[in-house]
Amino acid sequence: MDAPVNGPANEALWVRTDAVIPGGGIYLTRSARFAGRDVMPSFIASAEGCRLVDADGRSFLDFNCGNGPNLLGYRHPEVDAAAASQAARVDLAAFFPEVMPAYAERLLEWGDGFHWALFTKNGSDSTNLAMRIMRAARRQPYVVLFESAYHGFGIEIALAPETTFDEQHKYVIRVPWNDAGALLEVADRYGEQVAGVMLNPLDQNPAQPTRGVSPELVDAIARFRQRTGALVTVDDVRNGFRLHPRGSHVHMGIDPDLLCLGKAQANGYSTSTVLGREALRAAAERINFTATYMFSAVAFRAGMATIDIYERDGVFDHIVAMGQRLKDGIVRAGREAGHEDTVMSGPAAMPTFLFAEDSRAKRARTFARHAAQRGAIFHPLLNWFVSFAHKEADIDEAIDIARRAFELTPTDVSLL
Amino acid sequence: MDAPVNGPANEALWVRTDAVIPGGGIYLTRSARFAGRDVMPSFIASAEGCRLVDADGRSFLDFNCGNGPNLLGYRHPEVDAAAASQAARVDLAAFFPEVMPAYAERLLEWGDGFHWALFTKNGSDSTNLAMRIMRAARRQPYVVLFESAYHGFGIEIALAPETTFDEQHKYVIRVPWNDAGALLEVADRYGEQVAGVMLNPLDQNPAQPTRGVSPELVDAIARFRQRTGALVTVDDVRNGFRLHPRGSHVHMGIDPDLLCLGKAQANGYSTSTVLGREALRAAAERINFTATYMFSAVAFRAGMATIDIYERDGVFDHIVAMGQRLKDGIVRAGREAGHEDTVMSGPAAMPTFLFAEDSRAKRARTFARHAAQRGAIFHPLLNWFVSFAHKEADIDEAIDIARRAFELTPTDVSLL
Repeated sequence: MDAPVNGPANEALWVRTDAVIPGGGIYLTRSARFAGRDVMPSFIASAEGCRLVDADGRSFLDFNCGNGPNLLGYRHPEVDAAAASQAARVDLAAFFPEVMPAYAERLLEWGDGFHWALFTKNGSDSTNLAMRIMRAARRQPYVVLFESAYHGFGIEIALAPETTFDEQHKYVIRVPWNDAGALLEVADRYGEQVAGVMLNPLDQNPAQPTRGVSPELVDAIARFRQRTGALVTVDDVRNGFRLHPRGSHVHMGIDPDLLCLGKAQANGYSTSTVLGREALRAAAERINFTATYMFSAVAFRAGMATIDIYERDGVFDHIVAMGQRLKDGIVRAGREAGHEDTVMSGPAAMPTFLFAEDSRAKRARTFARHAAQRGAIFHPLLNWFVSFAHKEADIDEAIDIARRAFELTPTDVSLL
Repeated sequence: MDAPVNGPANEALWVRTDAVIPGGGIYLTRSARFAGRDVMPSFIASAEGCRLVDADGRSFLDFNCGNGPNLLGYRHPEVDAAAASQAARVDLAAFFPEVMPAYAERLLEWGDGFHWALFTKNGSDSTNLAMRIMRAARRQPYVVLFESAYHGFGIEIALAPETTFDEQHKYVIRVPWNDAGALLEVADRYGEQVAGVMLNPLDQNPAQPTRGVSPELVDAIARFRQRTGALVTVDDVRNGFRLHPRGSHVHMGIDPDLLCLGKAQANGYSTSTVLGREALRAAAERINFTATYMFSAVAFRAGMATIDIYERDGVFDHIVAMGQRLKDGIVRAGREAGHEDTVMSGPAAMPTFLFAEDSRAKRARTFARHAAQRGAIFHPLLNWFVSFAHKEADIDEAIDIARRAFELTPTDVSLL
């Protein structure tokens, strides 16, 4: 029997956390317990590049990347230097930070075809604002979302909300993922009452293979727009900068009215964005929307540095190459250890690991626990993320750890 | 004719901002233009203590305090050192930051009578979460809010929303400020269908005197709770740490089920909080609520340092004393210049300036413009904030600037 993943310091922090912070759905996927008891290390003490150190002083090769933000590497020296230099002048003060228009211009230079930018704080702020802008522009109430698509914690869009009244969801229509026919039925039924459609480039189903958007759905969205006049938002908060260097809408071949960004856009500094087309500017201006923390000059500087480095250093090509090396190596190691059903689905820089023959991800959790005990964070339920800090040697080390973890994992779930 | 408040660098930044960032209701009170054209400096380049420097290099004695967060002084050395020390280890990584339970414990030590803490990002996240917890706990839909009370940018609670369908407000009941009778009528009409009441300690009406909560309303809330079983949230995002050293609920004499914090709690680092009572823990745990950026170890460390310094240095007593000196001095200076109707309403550390005889705040804006031209930021529509960095000499300098600005402002609005 191996030692627990969570050493005494982690366990002591859990006792304190359970006393003062509610559990359950709160912080759901962020909690190490979402992966199961003692599968992942729980409390992080330091980070650098692609490595984490937990409260017990154990080091881990990380593929969670803060659930997305770590695009260039934890504590990237240039991003942190840009942020520190700004912090030495001002972060959050009165009115607008001097750097704000420059960062908007930089994002519009990156995001081809958009005309204005709005900065929010959370990714959920961006999806919420996008829905409001679509509704305000069209003066219609309905928004179409897709099942298994995650757009944040707003009660109107949450996947498992604790609602006490149906009106909270009355104007959201959920269409099955990639179901072009169902989408066009919505056009028949609701017509011009639809304000807009919001979609992610990937679905998000814990312990399921990742599905992208099919070309048939892309075609159906185009027809839907024509027939109803609906607007389209691409929610790229989770996938941005990892599916296509110019945004996941380019990857999908969709020309959206609004694009939501977050997570990776500032390498872990907290800022999110909505980019929009000129035709929606007037609608945006009708919305009362502000929050004190949206105006962090430090986050804006970090975001500018992040996108500069992303383009300068060929980050996209690197994370795709490393992600592909990881996917191939993990599948090969799994099969060599007798796990013929090892699957790495989804795009290279955001692969999703699972065993095809598993029950409640028991084998995946066992594999993840063995890997964590050997120093690698392979989430058993959520997709993994690759950063620019992951180099070939790191990927190969990860595959070596995976090989050993596969050997220790039963190939038959009934043994667990 | 004085030179404009906004010099060429500010004006150039406005041209760029107008090209790439929608205006109107977006960032409403944060925009310098909310005060009127060329009343306030617009783009901030640096800040220290209680001073700002704008993009044109002009220095201002500031009473906006970032609209609240600047409690101890911009770039407070100890807060920034705590944050930098944490940033050198890790800010945002996978799972939970090691410091998270310690910060929750620290806030619970400060906030007498609460049993758990939840960290959010925006203040709006906290009010939104509080409403969800009250509804989940009571399994009832209605929430009572008060007119002129600001609780953030959520469409259900926004004061001037761009709604396209009535259902967005169906389960929010607005009662006139301090109207105890109207509140008790809600009890008669809705009874146990009310999940909770959310209130601020102060109303927020641009260019109106600040009103606190009356003892009659406090009594009515107690009766309302008894009759309906409703829960009570005090939204202390804006007023926290400036009305009472232990929270504005103590100032009001209300014993709430939930307390929302934000803004001043981390001196400008972005974190907000809901503190709650044991009886609501189970309801909180039923809510799926998370966001990547909520787990900033740097913000948590800054928050811990802020509350330590706040208690250690007697910050509350200082800001009250300085605020009272400011209120008295401004009123005296106004009257000496012939403005018999100069009013400074509200609590000492958050005073609201106005002329009683004004039309669309024209005189107040003129006064504010003259003050800005002479180096002081006196918002003509929103309350001012006092920080620990404001010392006697700063207050006296502000009063001197006000004296000159009063002399240049007509005592009769028909002259404007």
